[in-house]
Amino acid sequence: MGVLWYTEWLSPLEAHVHGIKEVIFDGWTKYQRVTIAKTGSFGKVLFLDGYAQSSEYDEFIYHESLVHPAMITHPTPRKVLIVGGGEGATLREVLKHDTVEHVVMVDIDQELVELAKKYLPEWHKGAFDDPRVELLFMDGKEYIEKTREKFDVVILDLTDPIKDTPGVLLYTREFYEAVKKILNKEGVMVTQATSTRYYINAFTIIGNTLREVFPYVRLYKVFVPAFYSEWGFAIGTISRDPLSIPQEEVKRRLKAMDLKYLDPEAYAFLFHIPRYMLEKMKKYTQVSTLENPLELAPWNHQT
Amino acid sequence: MGVLWYTEWLSPLEAHVHGIKEVIFDGWTKYQRVTIAKTGSFGKVLFLDGYAQSSEYDEFIYHESLVHPAMITHPTPRKVLIVGGGEGATLREVLKHDTVEHVVMVDIDQELVELAKKYLPEWHKGAFDDPRVELLFMDGKEYIEKTREKFDVVILDLTDPIKDTPGVLLYTREFYEAVKKILNKEGVMVTQATSTRYYINAFTIIGNTLREVFPYVRLYKVFVPAFYSEWGFAIGTISRDPLSIPQEEVKRRLKAMDLKYLDPEAYAFLFHIPRYMLEKMKKYTQVSTLENPLELAPWNHQT
Amino acid sequence: MGVLWYTEWLSPLEAHVHGIKEVIFDGWTKYQRVTIAKTGSFGKVLFLDGYAQSSEYDEFIYHESLVHPAMITHPTPRKVLIVGGGEGATLREVLKHDTVEHVVMVDIDQELVELAKKYLPEWHKGAFDDPRVELLFMDGKEYIEKTREKFDVVILDLTDPIKDTPGVLLYTREFYEAVKKILNKEGVMVTQATSTRYYINAFTIIGNTLREVFPYVRLYKVFVPAFYSEWGFAIGTISRDPLSIPQEEVKRRLKAMDLKYLDPEAYAFLFHIPRYMLEKMKKYTQVSTLENPLELAPWNHQT
Amino acid sequence: MGVLWYTEWLSPLEAHVHGIKEVIFDGWTKYQRVTIAKTGSFGKVLFLDGYAQSSEYDEFIYHESLVHPAMITHPTPRKVLIVGGGEGATLREVLKHDTVEHVVMVDIDQELVELAKKYLPEWHKGAFDDPRVELLFMDGKEYIEKTREKFDVVILDLTDPIKDTPGVLLYTREFYEAVKKILNKEGVMVTQATSTRYYINAFTIIGNTLREVFPYVRLYKVFVPAFYSEWGFAIGTISRDPLSIPQEEVKRRLKAMDLKYLDPEAYAFLFHIPRYMLEKMKKYTQVSTLENPLELAPWNHQT
Repeated sequence: MGVLWYTEWLSPLEAHVHGIKEVIFDGWTKYQRVTIAKTGSFGKVLFLDGYAQSSEYDEFIYHESLVHPAMITHPTPRKVLIVGGGEGATLREVLKHDTVEHVVMVDIDQELVELAKKYLPEWHKGAFDDPRVELLFMDGKEYIEKTREKFDVVILDLTDPIKDTPGVLLYTREFYEAVKKILNKEGVMVTQATSTRYYINAFTIIGNTLREVFPYVRLYKVFVPAFYSEWGFAIGTISRDPLSIPQEEVKRRLKAMDLKYLDPEAYAFLFHIPRYMLEKMKKYTQVSTLENPLELAPWNHQT
Repeated sequence: MGVLWYTEWLSPLEAHVHGIKEVIFDGWTKYQRVTIAKTGSFGKVLFLDGYAQSSEYDEFIYHESLVHPAMITHPTPRKVLIVGGGEGATLREVLKHDTVEHVVMVDIDQELVELAKKYLPEWHKGAFDDPRVELLFMDGKEYIEKTREKFDVVILDLTDPIKDTPGVLLYTREFYEAVKKILNKEGVMVTQATSTRYYINAFTIIGNTLREVFPYVRLYKVFVPAFYSEWGFAIGTISRDPLSIPQEEVKRRLKAMDLKYLDPEAYAFLFHIPRYMLEKMKKYTQVSTLENPLELAPWNHQT
Repeated sequence: MGVLWYTEWLSPLEAHVHGIKEVIFDGWTKYQRVTIAKTGSFGKVLFLDGYAQSSEYDEFIYHESLVHPAMITHPTPRKVLIVGGGEGATLREVLKHDTVEHVVMVDIDQELVELAKKYLPEWHKGAFDDPRVELLFMDGKEYIEKTREKFDVVILDLTDPIKDTPGVLLYTREFYEAVKKILNKEGVMVTQATSTRYYINAFTIIGNTLREVFPYVRLYKVFVPAFYSEWGFAIGTISRDPLSIPQEEVKRRLKAMDLKYLDPEAYAFLFHIPRYMLEKMKKYTQVSTLENPLELAPWNHQT
Repeated sequence: MGVLWYTEWLSPLEAHVHGIKEVIFDGWTKYQRVTIAKTGSFGKVLFLDGYAQSSEYDEFIYHESLVHPAMITHPTPRKVLIVGGGEGATLREVLKHDTVEHVVMVDIDQELVELAKKYLPEWHKGAFDDPRVELLFMDGKEYIEKTREKFDVVILDLTDPIKDTPGVLLYTREFYEAVKKILNKEGVMVTQATSTRYYINAFTIIGNTLREVFPYVRLYKVFVPAFYSEWGFAIGTISRDPLSIPQEEVKRRLKAMDLKYLDPEAYAFLFHIPRYMLEKMKKYTQVSTLENPLELAPWNHQT
C-alpha cells in the first residue's frame, strides 16, 4: 500500500489517486504548483495544480492527437504557433512535419519550461534545441493580439478554463477571432477541449464558440488512459474540412512520421462521436464570450 | 467533500474512488461482497468484491460490446447460453435479437440475481420475465460440462481470473474446449477479457488460449468510462471470422436494435488494436491451462 | 486493502479514513445523513453527517467523561435533562447514579433514535426502557425555553456548531442563560465542547461564553481514540466548583458505578490543560452570542 | 481539497491522510524512504517508510516524554547513549539536563542525519554542535555489544519492530541484556514502545521482555496528536523505581528545564494505564526473544 498519493479530483465526488514512488520536484512557479513524480502506473507524470498534464506512459496519445489532425488539414504547414505546451511534446510532434520552417512557442511560465527541460527529456526529446524553434515567455493572448506574423497552424495546448483563472479568456469567441486574424488563408487552429466525460458541456461549448468564427469546425476525441476518459479537441479551419481530406493523403502523411498511436484507423475514429454523447451535447447551446464565458468549477484549486 | 468512498484498487499504487451518495445495499452473499450504491459520477453502480461491475451511466457500452459482435458473427442465433451476467443486462441485449428462441442463463450466485431483480431494474428491464429465458443457479463450468444442449452462441460474462478464486478455471484451454463441444457448427463464443491497460497480459493470454481451440479468434476492446480504461473481449468462432462479415450485414443487424453505443463506425473500431498495444502484447506468449493457469493478483480481496 | 471507506475530513488538508467491513445502515433522516457501519478498527460506529459520533470500541470514554463530572459536581442529582445523545449512551451513564429519579431526554431526530434502538443496543443497553426516562422528540432549545420543570443537571450532548446549522444556537450566551433558568439552585450544566486540537478556538470560546453566565466554569478534555484527538467539555455550575469536590467524595461516587475508563486518577487528569494548549487558548477572547455566534467551517457537509 | 496526500496505514482498514502543501524532500537513503513535507495540520513533518516520526507541531510531546522520565529516574545522569533519534530532538532534550557531560548518539543512517541537519533545524536546534556530543554512524546493536563505555542512561529512539526489518532485534530480551551490561549501577534505559492502540500487544510484550532483565520496569504512555493515539514507552532500571521518586524531586528537576508539555501533573499521568487497557494487556504474555521475537505486520512497507 502506497504512502504518498497524488489525488486528482474529477469532481467533489470522484477522484483518481496515483501512488507516488518518488517526488522528483514539487514546488510553485509564479503561476502554478508543479509536481513531477514517478507514479505507480504511468511512469513519470507532470502534474499542474492538481491534474496530470501528461504521463511518460501515454503522453504520445494526447500529443499526436492534438497536433496531427490540424497539421494534416493544412496542405503544407510551414509556420506554426504553439500556445502553452510547456513540456515540449507538442513542439516535438510539430517538428515531425518536414514542411515546417518556423515554430513559435509561447508559454507564460518560464519556470515550468525550465523544469521540463531539466526533468522531462522523454517528452521534449531535444525539441527546444531545434533551430526552427523560437521560444517566447509571455502571455499567449497578448502575443496573438500583437504579433504581425501570420501562421498556417495555431495549436492551443492550454490548461482548462477554470473559473477565476486567466485561462478562461482563451476559450472565448473574441479570442478565436484574434487567432483567425493571424492565420494564413488556408489556416487551421486546434485547441484542447477538455474531458468529454467530466466536461461534456465545455467540449460542446468550445465547438459552439468556434463555429461562430470558422467556416469549418470539427470536434474530436481520443481515449487517454492517464486522463481516465476520452479527451476532447476542437479544430477550426478557414478553407478545408478535416473530414474532406482524401484517405490517401491522410495515410501518406501519417506514414511519413513515426507515430505510436495515430494510424489511419485510429485517425478516422477520432471524429466519431457516439449517439449517447451527441444526445447529451444537445443540451448545451452556450457560446463562450468575454461577457458570458465558459468557466469550469475549480474542484481542487485550494492547494 | 464526500464522506463515504468506494475505492477500486487498480494496483497497489493506483486507485479510483467514488463518492457514495447513499448505500442501497451492502452485504455478503455466499460468494462475494455485493455493494449497490448511488455514486457521485456514474449514478447507481453495482460493485462486487471491490470493483464496479457496471454503472447506470454506461453499462450499455460494456453490454452492447460484449453481446452483439458474437451474436452478429452467427448468421441466425437461436439458442444462446450466458454464464454469469447476474445484473440481467447481458440477457437484455441478447433478447434484442429476434432470431433468439431460447436463452439459458447460468449464474452461481442466486442471492446476487435476487438483489439485481430488486435493485437494478434499469439493467435487466424485465428481461428475467421473458418466456424465452431459462434461469439456472449453478456453477457455469459444471453446467457446460454436463449439459446435452447445444448452443449457437455462448457468452461468458465473468469476473476476472483472480488468483485463488474459482474464476481462474473459466479462462483455461480445457474450459474453452468444453465450451466448443456444446456449440453448434456455426457456433460463436465470446468472453470478457479484462482491462487492456491494467491486465494487457491477461487480455493477450486469453487470446492465445482461445487460438488453441478455435479456428477464428479476434480480440477487441472498447472504452468504458466506469472502468477508466478500455475493456477487452475475446471472440472464438468455428466457421466465420468476425472481420469477414459484410459491412451491409453488420449495419442491417445493428440497425434492427435500438442501441445507444454500437453504431457501425464504433463496431468497426472495436477491433482496432493500436500499435503501442500490439508491441506490449508480443511479450506474453503463455497459454492458460489447468496446469499453468492465468491468475491475476488479488489487490483488494481482503474485504 | 479495503474497498469501502468512511472519510472524516478533519480539515481540507487532513482526514481519517475507516475501512468499512459492512454498512449496516446508510440513509437520511429528516435532519442528517446517518451511517452505521462495522469499521476495521473501532467495531460498530455511528457516523452523522461525516463524523464518527461514537464507536463500540471506546464510546465509554466519551460518555463517561461527558456525564460523570457534572453528576458528581451536584451533591444529589435527582432530575436530569439530556439534550441530544440519540445513541442512548449518555442516558445509560446518567442512570448509573442511584439518586436519579427522573430523566428527560430531548432529541430532535426521532428517526435517529429509532435507528439507535434497533442497531445500537451495545450503546443504550436498554436504557430507553427505564421507567425513570421520559423521551421527547422536539427541538431542545424550544424545550428549554418553554418547560416549567427544573433540573439538577443539564447535559448537552450535541453536534458541533457548524456554520449554517441550527446547532450554532446551542452554544450561545443566550442559550446558556436559558439553561441556567431551568436549573435548581445547586444546578450544573455540561456541554461537549468540540475537539481541542481541531477547534481549540471553539473549545476556548465555549468556555468564555459559559463564564458570562455561570459563577464556576471548568474546561476539561479526554483523549478519545475514535476522535484522534482529545475531546473537550465545558461545565458550568451555580454553587460548587468541580475542582473543590473532596477527593474522597469523587472516589466514593465513582466507585459506586462500574466504569471502564474514569477512575480517580483519570478523573483528576481530565482538568489538566497543558501549557502549550493554554498558550494557544489565549488568542481567543470571543464570547458566542446570537449576534456574533461561534461557527465552525463545514468541511464535509455537502453530502 | 488537497492534491498530494501522505497516507499512514494504521492497519489495512484504517489510515490517516495528510494533505501536503509542499514536499521539501522525498527520496531513499540506503535504509529507508525519507519524506519531509509541509502538511496541512502539523506543520513540517518527517516521515520514514510510511509513518510520521515527528511533527513540528507536537514533536516536543513525544521527545519530552521519551527522555525526561528516564533522565529523572537517574539521580545524576552524566553519560547518556541515544540509539536512533536521527532528527536530533532526543539529543536536544537530553542536553537540557545540566549534569550531562557526554552523549553518544548512534544512528545507522548517516544520510538521514544529514537531511535532518539541513531541513529540520526546528528539531535539533543546533544540538549536533554541542561539544558534549559524539555522533556515530553505525548499527546501534553492534555499538552496544562492542563498546567498553558505560552509561547512566540509554535511550532507544527506534522505529517499530516491523517484520523482516533489523529493528526486530532491538526489542528482544537478548538485546536488553546487552544494554544492561553497559549501564552503570544506577543505570536506566527507556525505549519507545509503539502505539498503545494499534499495537497494544507490542506495548505489553516490550514490558514483559524488559521485566525479564530489569528489577524495575514501568510502562507509560502519552497522547501525541500527530500519532492519533497514545504512544507507549517502557523504562527499565537497575536500582530505583520511577514511581518512587519523591514528588519534590520531580518538580524541581522538571522546573529546571523549559518544557512545553511535561509539567508535574502531566508527568504523573504518564504512568496511568486505564482499566480497559489493562484488561486487554492481560492477553499478551509473550516475551520477545531472538528465537521468538516480537514482529509487527508491515502494512505499508512496499514503497
